[in-house]
Amino acid sequence: MKRIILSLMALATLSASAQFGGGRVNPTVPSVTENVTEDFKPAPNNQSGHQYPMVNSQRMVRAQISAPNATSVGLDISGTIYSMTKNENGVWTGTSAPQDEGFHYYQLNIDGASVPDPGSLYYYGASRWGSGIEVPSADQEFWQVKNVPQGSVNEVYYWSSVTEAMRHCYIYFPHEYYTNTTKKFPVLYLMHGMGENEHGWAEQGHTGQIMDNLIAQGKAVPFIVVIDCLDARAANPQNAAPQGGFAGGQRPVTQGAPQGQGGGQRRGGFGGGFMMGGAFQDVLIKDIIPMVEKNYRVIADPQHRAMAGLSMGGMTTHSVTLANPTTFAYVGMFSGGTFNTQELENADDFKKTNKVLFMSCGGKENMGVMEAAENLKKIGVNATGYISEGTAHEWHTWRRSLYQFAQLIFK
Amino acid sequence: MKRIILSLMALATLSASAQFGGGRVNPTVPSVTENVTEDFKPAPNNQSGHQYPMVNSQRMVRAQISAPNATSVGLDISGTIYSMTKNENGVWTGTSAPQDEGFHYYQLNIDGASVPDPGSLYYYGASRWGSGIEVPSADQEFWQVKNVPQGSVNEVYYWSSVTEAMRHCYIYFPHEYYTNTTKKFPVLYLMHGMGENEHGWAEQGHTGQIMDNLIAQGKAVPFIVVIDCLDARAANPQNAAPQGGFAGGQRPVTQGAPQGQGGGQRRGGFGGGFMMGGAFQDVLIKDIIPMVEKNYRVIADPQHRAMAGLSMGGMTTHSVTLANPTTFAYVGMFSGGTFNTQELENADDFKKTNKVLFMSCGGKENMGVMEAAENLKKIGVNATGYISEGTAHEWHTWRRSLYQFAQLIFK
Repeated sequence: MKRIILSLMALATLSASAQFGGGRVNPTVPSVTENVTEDFKPAPNNQSGHQYPMVNSQRMVRAQISAPNATSVGLDISGTIYSMTKNENGVWTGTSAPQDEGFHYYQLNIDGASVPDPGSLYYYGASRWGSGIEVPSADQEFWQVKNVPQGSVNEVYYWSSVTEAMRHCYIYFPHEYYTNTTKKFPVLYLMHGMGENEHGWAEQGHTGQIMDNLIAQGKAVPFIVVIDCLDARAANPQNAAPQGGFAGGQRPVTQGAPQGQGGGQRRGGFGGGFMMGGAFQDVLIKDIIPMVEKNYRVIADPQHRAMAGLSMGGMTTHSVTLANPTTFAYVGMFSGGTFNTQELENADDFKKTNKVLFMSCGGKENMGVMEAAENLKKIGVNATGYISEGTAHEWHTWRRSLYQFAQLIFK
Repeated sequence: MKRIILSLMALATLSASAQFGGGRVNPTVPSVTENVTEDFKPAPNNQSGHQYPMVNSQRMVRAQISAPNATSVGLDISGTIYSMTKNENGVWTGTSAPQDEGFHYYQLNIDGASVPDPGSLYYYGASRWGSGIEVPSADQEFWQVKNVPQGSVNEVYYWSSVTEAMRHCYIYFPHEYYTNTTKKFPVLYLMHGMGENEHGWAEQGHTGQIMDNLIAQGKAVPFIVVIDCLDARAANPQNAAPQGGFAGGQRPVTQGAPQGQGGGQRRGGFGGGFMMGGAFQDVLIKDIIPMVEKNYRVIADPQHRAMAGLSMGGMTTHSVTLANPTTFAYVGMFSGGTFNTQELENADDFKKTNKVLFMSCGGKENMGVMEAAENLKKIGVNATGYISEGTAHEWHTWRRSLYQFAQLIFK
């Protein structure tokens, strides 16, 4: 348990979610000007028609914004603010040091105001909706849209008896769910990390594309993915509490709702009050799994149920699957620490039910996943370790982890 | 035709899509300070934990942002920039004149930079992803999340033989689609307006909630809604052309794709190159309808097919349904002008197929929908006019229009 807590603290420090949080200001350095290869191209995830932000072949990010009356503008990415410079037309430009392959949250700082870049698309992470940039990676084909049989990501609201409110999730259905209308499918319950919500796996995580491509190649069996949220707060207009947070399992209050209404916003009301351990477990076991197994064509047994998550969602997977040892046959922790032999040595129910225990992290993280997998194998657990080379505690690590994990389960 | 073109020009002027476009700068006025009722509450669609923006009972919008080093900050909403004032902590605050009930796009202006407000959620409209604010309305219950049987909005990619690229749409399925797995359903094809894309009806349009609530109350029959995009550009990584636009029907080019890849971004690649008339018609008739009728449980005949759209999407509905008179029995134009008697007098196929012709607009628009409906009735068309009281060329008009139209069709 001590190890778990230490891991969680390490994750909180590492996590992109902490980048912009808590009034902490990242250090400011000059924009990079030396040894810059001038082959910048618009980032692949810019807003339509926008040239900036750009990325070059060294994976440097270049941002640009028109702010004719500003006195200082900075590009805030990966824990550093790069000061931008103004040209005669009032347009500011700045270039970062090389970034890791994959997706990064960032923001601009204009005369002390931290704002999204109007050139980028917006994502939920680092505890806010804001800019994200996709730095092209050598292996990115695996998560991109291909002309293969398409499943779809569904936006679903459901009633939670635990929080006594409507909640919001995404559910991926494989193509075959629509074309073979009598077949039942296995289900993976997939969780986000700290400072994130259910939008992460649906958007920057590209769960739909990863699954469609794997299934089309015959590398994964078709299964359903339920992408829920660790936040206790609900999407219900009457129960939404947009101000402040509240602790795990506490019932959403109504008095915080603006105009007595809230708004039933699909993207609001999340991000502050995370449910740890027991509270989310209650929602998962009492509300989410029964809702899924009632409404959809699902094989409702442990051998066709998996749970996985990234970072804090991996820690949650750890605690929920330990506490419910006969519920999930497949368990995945992506940058979420490890199981250890002491925990599982005498966990007979867990070991009897479990078919695959997957633990992964980025090559720039040090989580001991390979060593943990070796040790767990010695006590009879089918454990697998995976390292995402060249990436840190960020989304490209987790996309690759899902890609690996999805090939191991329900087989 | 002349009338159609004139109407389209009028719409382009009226449309919120033009608000921030084309380098035009809205006039700046002082923040409102007199006769302001100090009962401001956080807008219902703020980002989690954010107090600002706020709305008061007079429907004034108050924005606030920390920008300690800025020299001027403005709140840009509904065609006017309200200059904000700074306090001793470097926090800027500004208040707008009263706004209409419903949803409005807006942005902040910091020392000449136009940026999203970090307190709001972000929406696609006015040709950009950016801030939107929900000004509470007396009738808003109809589009809010309720604990009723839930359908779901699906994110779907499909191959277009016309554009030779993958395209992106949303498809709403009613609750019964999942629970009654042998039943087939009618389909409404629902289009967005200028400067918008398929996200509009799925997000700020609240199609899923409007439909779920209507079906739960027995006011609408369960039907499928296909929400597509008038933009010719595709969501395919190989074909995405993030720079510039291209004219209707032209094939997406590859050389504009950054790093040779693009990104398969679900929210990118739209917004610049709209397909008018013929080009979109081709995609709809040759790709979208066949894809829907092949993959889903759909009643594939004209009496179970409807088409509607807002603004430019209404104009498109006008031209597509006139050119395909036996394809759609139900036609809706929301703030999209009117059909006139000359067009339909001798359109025997159209009149024989059509069951409902619905034309609507906001009370602050003057589109002659009631008069047009009266005239069309005289030549044997079952035309209906609807005026959304107190609203202009904005989303609350269109939500109400969908709410009305959905009650009339497939009955």
